[in-house]
Amino acid sequence: MINPKKKADLLFKNCKIVDVFNNRIIEDSLAIQNGRIMGFGEYDSETVIDLEGDYISPSFIDAHVHIESSMVSPAQFTKTLAERGVTTIIADPHEIGNVSGLEGIEYILKATEKLPFDVYIMLPSCVPATPFETSGAVLTAEKLKKFINDKRVLGLGELMDFYGVVERRKDIVDKIKIAEDKFIDGHGPVIRGKDLDAYISAGVRTEHECTTVEEMNERISRGMYILIRQGSAAKNLPELIKGVNKDNLRRILFCTDDRHPEDLIKDGSIDNNIRMAVNHGIEPIDAIKIASLNAAEAYNLKNRGAIAPGYKADLVVFENLDNIVAKKVYKDGKLISENGKTIVEFSEYIDKRVMSKVNIREISKEDIQIKFKKKDRSKANIIDIVKNDLITKNHIEEIELEDNLYNFSKTDIIKIVVVERHTGKSGVFSGLLRGYGIRDGAIGTTIAHDSHNIIIAGDNDEDILNVIREIDCMKGGIAISSRGVILDKLQLDISGLMTTRSIEYVDNKLKDMMKIARNLGVNEGVDPFMNLAFLALPVIPDIKVTDKGLFDVINFEFMEIEVE
Amino acid sequence: MINPKKKADLLFKNCKIVDVFNNRIIEDSLAIQNGRIMGFGEYDSETVIDLEGDYISPSFIDAHVHIESSMVSPAQFTKTLAERGVTTIIADPHEIGNVSGLEGIEYILKATEKLPFDVYIMLPSCVPATPFETSGAVLTAEKLKKFINDKRVLGLGELMDFYGVVERRKDIVDKIKIAEDKFIDGHGPVIRGKDLDAYISAGVRTEHECTTVEEMNERISRGMYILIRQGSAAKNLPELIKGVNKDNLRRILFCTDDRHPEDLIKDGSIDNNIRMAVNHGIEPIDAIKIASLNAAEAYNLKNRGAIAPGYKADLVVFENLDNIVAKKVYKDGKLISENGKTIVEFSEYIDKRVMSKVNIREISKEDIQIKFKKKDRSKANIIDIVKNDLITKNHIEEIELEDNLYNFSKTDIIKIVVVERHTGKSGVFSGLLRGYGIRDGAIGTTIAHDSHNIIIAGDNDEDILNVIREIDCMKGGIAISSRGVILDKLQLDISGLMTTRSIEYVDNKLKDMMKIARNLGVNEGVDPFMNLAFLALPVIPDIKVTDKGLFDVINFEFMEIEVE
Repeated sequence: MINPKKKADLLFKNCKIVDVFNNRIIEDSLAIQNGRIMGFGEYDSETVIDLEGDYISPSFIDAHVHIESSMVSPAQFTKTLAERGVTTIIADPHEIGNVSGLEGIEYILKATEKLPFDVYIMLPSCVPATPFETSGAVLTAEKLKKFINDKRVLGLGELMDFYGVVERRKDIVDKIKIAEDKFIDGHGPVIRGKDLDAYISAGVRTEHECTTVEEMNERISRGMYILIRQGSAAKNLPELIKGVNKDNLRRILFCTDDRHPEDLIKDGSIDNNIRMAVNHGIEPIDAIKIASLNAAEAYNLKNRGAIAPGYKADLVVFENLDNIVAKKVYKDGKLISENGKTIVEFSEYIDKRVMSKVNIREISKEDIQIKFKKKDRSKANIIDIVKNDLITKNHIEEIELEDNLYNFSKTDIIKIVVVERHTGKSGVFSGLLRGYGIRDGAIGTTIAHDSHNIIIAGDNDEDILNVIREIDCMKGGIAISSRGVILDKLQLDISGLMTTRSIEYVDNKLKDMMKIARNLGVNEGVDPFMNLAFLALPVIPDIKVTDKGLFDVINFEFMEIEVE
Repeated sequence: MINPKKKADLLFKNCKIVDVFNNRIIEDSLAIQNGRIMGFGEYDSETVIDLEGDYISPSFIDAHVHIESSMVSPAQFTKTLAERGVTTIIADPHEIGNVSGLEGIEYILKATEKLPFDVYIMLPSCVPATPFETSGAVLTAEKLKKFINDKRVLGLGELMDFYGVVERRKDIVDKIKIAEDKFIDGHGPVIRGKDLDAYISAGVRTEHECTTVEEMNERISRGMYILIRQGSAAKNLPELIKGVNKDNLRRILFCTDDRHPEDLIKDGSIDNNIRMAVNHGIEPIDAIKIASLNAAEAYNLKNRGAIAPGYKADLVVFENLDNIVAKKVYKDGKLISENGKTIVEFSEYIDKRVMSKVNIREISKEDIQIKFKKKDRSKANIIDIVKNDLITKNHIEEIELEDNLYNFSKTDIIKIVVVERHTGKSGVFSGLLRGYGIRDGAIGTTIAHDSHNIIIAGDNDEDILNVIREIDCMKGGIAISSRGVILDKLQLDISGLMTTRSIEYVDNKLKDMMKIARNLGVNEGVDPFMNLAFLALPVIPDIKVTDKGLFDVINFEFMEIEVE
């Protein structure tokens, strides 16, 4: 508690204090004590900092983000965000949960415990995301219970299985029940009307998948908070911001969901949402309010998200209200970042249990063969990549075979191989892929939503096997092989998803590897890594591949490659 | 949880649903199941009610009220409010706490547990209010702890001892600490600047004592919720509503604080705040939002204060958005009131421990004498009533004595007697009072803020003693005696503060007694009962009387009657 009889630790003079409660700028001094706001005006203070007329506002909150999408460790990720004025995130460790289960969640909690940054957790509700692939864990309600009373666990993460919610399926209801007194995030973009009511009435309180104002307003009227997302793939802000007004503003939050290194470095995090919102006509203080007070209120994070006595001194200093760029960032009253560079340490925490999560047997050439009943030629279901999209189409074509096996007879039809990496048994499935475009090589990754098995695309078996060996060797990551030589690789040894290297390293590495991939012929309009990462997700239409087989997303069932 | 596969229990057709999230009217049907909102639109339903185009909105919340001020039991009080569209209150049992301590709080909790109405409790933080009078209980942090984890206890009630808060006095800090994870209500009307910051930084989150827009805005900017009060004595709405706008609206709540029977019957409760706000230019949906969603959000009352799937079906039906008068009121989906009359039972709960709380010895004529050092005449400090106000002035005048005792030689200077009623020892103190105006009689009451000892004003000792005997006999209440005869009385046997009789009975009785008091000469501009009730409160200037003596509020110390 603030002690009014003692000095302040820190006094900011000449500041324009952003008042998100009354939407006004208060020109005054601001005193900090013991990491909290002490008061407005002049106070005796150990340290005095003249802000020379700069603005000071509450720092920003990302209301829904997957740390794993940055490919860097929690320490590296939060460091990057801190440089942008974000000091609190609500993270859903869905990806690492799929690989490392409870140990993955525990790692995220432990790895962020002592950082100068607040990481709250929503427990991943859908691990595995589907029964059609082999994940590294099955997180039942009984298991999730272990963490529900952790002070930093706010509730249950995005309930993607909206059909299970609407149907009140027992496993889902059990999970909802453990979070009843906490908070439940939604993920139900397509549902409308009665299904939407049934989904919400289960206790689901947020949606971050809206794409239209109509969809957003329907959900706001039904009591949902809307997280306006500006991620790397999904960019909903320009459309949704049109529907924000003074009446519904308090129900609006910002999130990034998934944000890749390049975008984080170039455009930032929630600060990007704020600048964009202002550019789209939202009053700057309202944009800040959405990014601070609104998120704090929605998730019941007390004494946060505003500048008021007793509130956490989590603050951003900036020069221009119309182009908010963090100049100084304070966490609990301590300067952590200046001019876009952190000045304090974000210590790494290593947990051996989540490292080395590539648990495969020796994969042979025989394992990755595609066998047909016919001997010389046969019609086949082929996954057809759609450029600049994550959906695929089913392409049926007659292909040549060699002794019942596919032999790469057509250069535009390559193999897409999934190797299960969690159990050590390594179930392998190989399908056919068109539109990727690689020649004389293979690209593989352990980022493959949502179970994150190893997925490899290649036009010859040797390079495919070489990539698998390399990924095994570096205990997870991305690798490119051509003519038997590993041309480049990115090690992601934290559950095959993240690295403790800096985000700049990862960004540069990905750019290098992108060039190599293009040189090997990967088509423009195809992201060699991201398209690959979503080819194993059996909820995005039309046709996907998992370690268990070729999956027909339209009919929600497995299908044969061979068309008889 | 709503079961989407089952029928609705109730379907409202042809309704204009008030959407407090998007500030719009949705013309649709509304389904209820198991006491909760099931969804919008057509549903199979057991019962269908055609609202014929009426509005339906969330019912109202009084964010701060003392049930005791109504002089009726919790059952009678909530019944009265339910008829007005209020179905949730946040009550501070400060008065009964001063008389009956923890048993008083427990009584309020138990007496409201099974009502078709939600009563939440803030634990009274200042019992006793001052050390200058004898209360029925001393509620330390250690004692209050007993209830802090009750689901219906939201935190710590109005921290009136703002000086103790600002000074971080240990007993106050201990109380704040037990409520740290809950909520703390404020009561610090006069403080500004650094004192205000120190008060708020202790964790105080509301203020209901604002009287000006400037005071209100200063507090909103510092993170406080402002409860705009329209009570029986304090009527702040017309002034404060001027400062409400779309930006700060979410920080505004409504309360009544203290509301007397006549006003409750005539103008209502929070419905009155709503109508007044609309008359002062607030958009009707905003006024409803202040009275519902805002209070629910501020006090973290989940799934309440709006019409949304999964929310409690606490609803009000009314005809006219510009003049909101509850036509039907639903609690948990059940009709409880129609056309201003409840149609379900509000059962009384009797707890013997809070009845018969007038614990006095036989009071004799000697007990109520005022002795002077001088024999025949002396100058005396006399409490001077200020008309139409609760403050008093100190009037010094030379009075005639008879054998060192005051003998009612001047007809406008009467006795004001306080009899301590909690310990059985009955400390008695008698002072002098001017401006009350009674002739040949005495009026006494067990409502005497904040310790609620017996206070009697009279111009002769016989009637004063007669009133004391009558109050003792009826175990608390208000009585009027003239020439040795009890002319009328109101029994308040629940801790000397409330009765289980109806609010109409109390209102009629008070009106009858008011007439009698006026006939006995009580001056216009003086409320014979309310002025009496505040004469023993040693925090309202300038001069008051308690069981311990005459109190100088300006210098905050006891004073002698005799001026030497």
